[in-house]
Amino acid sequence: MKIYGDIRSGNCYKIKLLCALLGIGHQWIHVDILAGGTSSSDFLNKNPNGKIPLLELDDGRCLSESNAILNYLAAGSDLLPEDPFELAKVQQWQFFEQYSHEPYIAVARFIARYLGLPEERRQEYESKQAGGHKALAVMEQQLTATPYLTGDKLTTADICLYGYTHVADEGGFDLSQYPAVTAWLEKIASHPNYTGMA
Amino acid sequence: MKIYGDIRSGNCYKIKLLCALLGIGHQWIHVDILAGGTSSSDFLNKNPNGKIPLLELDDGRCLSESNAILNYLAAGSDLLPEDPFELAKVQQWQFFEQYSHEPYIAVARFIARYLGLPEERRQEYESKQAGGHKALAVMEQQLTATPYLTGDKLTTADICLYGYTHVADEGGFDLSQYPAVTAWLEKIASHPNYTGMA
Repeated sequence: MKIYGDIRSGNCYKIKLLCALLGIGHQWIHVDILAGGTSSSDFLNKNPNGKIPLLELDDGRCLSESNAILNYLAAGSDLLPEDPFELAKVQQWQFFEQYSHEPYIAVARFIARYLGLPEERRQEYESKQAGGHKALAVMEQQLTATPYLTGDKLTTADICLYGYTHVADEGGFDLSQYPAVTAWLEKIASHPNYTGMA
Repeated sequence: MKIYGDIRSGNCYKIKLLCALLGIGHQWIHVDILAGGTSSSDFLNKNPNGKIPLLELDDGRCLSESNAILNYLAAGSDLLPEDPFELAKVQQWQFFEQYSHEPYIAVARFIARYLGLPEERRQEYESKQAGGHKALAVMEQQLTATPYLTGDKLTTADICLYGYTHVADEGGFDLSQYPAVTAWLEKIASHPNYTGMA
C-alpha cells in the first residue's frame, strides 16, 4: 500500500496520523506540490483531479480525497462507528471540514507559512480570518458538550479536524480563545501511538 | 422526519431527489437563506453552522451536510454500495463535489442566477469558470469510462453531483463540451421516480 503525500499538508498528515494510531503499514511517497509533483502525467493517471493525498492499493486501485481515505482505512476499527447515525455524524464533521474549515484555516496557513504572506495575497489572507473563527466556534460549541466531535469516542472525524486545527496558529488563529478545542487537541496528542506533523 | 431546505439550492435538491428515487416520506420545510432563515436562534440550535439542508429525525436528532444526509438516508438501499472500496469511492466523489466542484459551479450560478450578476461580483464570477471547467473535465473523463461515477450503478455519488451539474449552464458553463456528462444527466433524469428542481 502506497500513500502519496506531503506531510506538511494537513490533508496528508491526517492519513499519516491515522496509520500511526491503527498501526497500518504503508510506503509513504513524498510529493512536492509546489514543484509540480501532482501535475505529472503519471500522477494524473492515478488521480485525474491532481491532488494529494492519494492511496494506491497493492492491486493498483487508487483512492483520493483525504476523508474518504481515512474512512476506508479505519473501516472495522474503533475509530469508525458502525451505528448508521453515528457514522453519518462522522461524515457530517468531515464535510464541514472540507467546506467550512479547510478553505479558511488551511488556506490562511498556506499563504502565511509557505508563501511568506506576500503583499499581493494579504487581502485574501485577511479575508480568511472570519470564516476560520466561525468554524472554530462551531467546534468549540460541540467540544464543550462532548469530549470528541461525535460524542464520547475518538473517530475519524476528530483525526480529520485535528489535521489543520492543530496548526491553525500558523494561519494567524489564536486558539487560546477556544479552551475546549485546545483541550481536545491535547487529548489527541497524548494518545500513545500519536505521531506529529514534523 | 423533517427536511429543512430551499429547493433551488443544489445541496438541498439532492436530498429531495434521493427521497423521490427511494420513496422516502418526509416533511419539507422551506427555509429562505436570503431572508435570514438560517440565522435564527431556533435554526442555529439545530445546526450551529447555520446551513441548509438539515435533516431532523422524529426523535429530534439533527444531521447537517447534504452528502452525510444522502448517505444516511440511502443506507441499506441499492444507492449505497456495501463493498468498502466502492463505498469509499462514493465518498471520494462527494468530497470532490464539496471542494472542487460546488465552490466554483454553485457559486458562479448563485452570483448569476440569484444575485443577477452585479458588477461588483463579476470578477469573482469569472474567477470561478476555470475551476468549474476543471471539475467538469474530471467528471467527463470518468463518465467516458463508466456509465456512473463509481462504476455500473447509480449511487449517492451521482445524486450528489447531479445537484449542481444539471444547472451548471445557469453559472455560465456550456455542457455541450462534455458529452459523457450530458448523457449521464439524461440517464438520471429518465429514472421513473425522478423529480426536478422546479
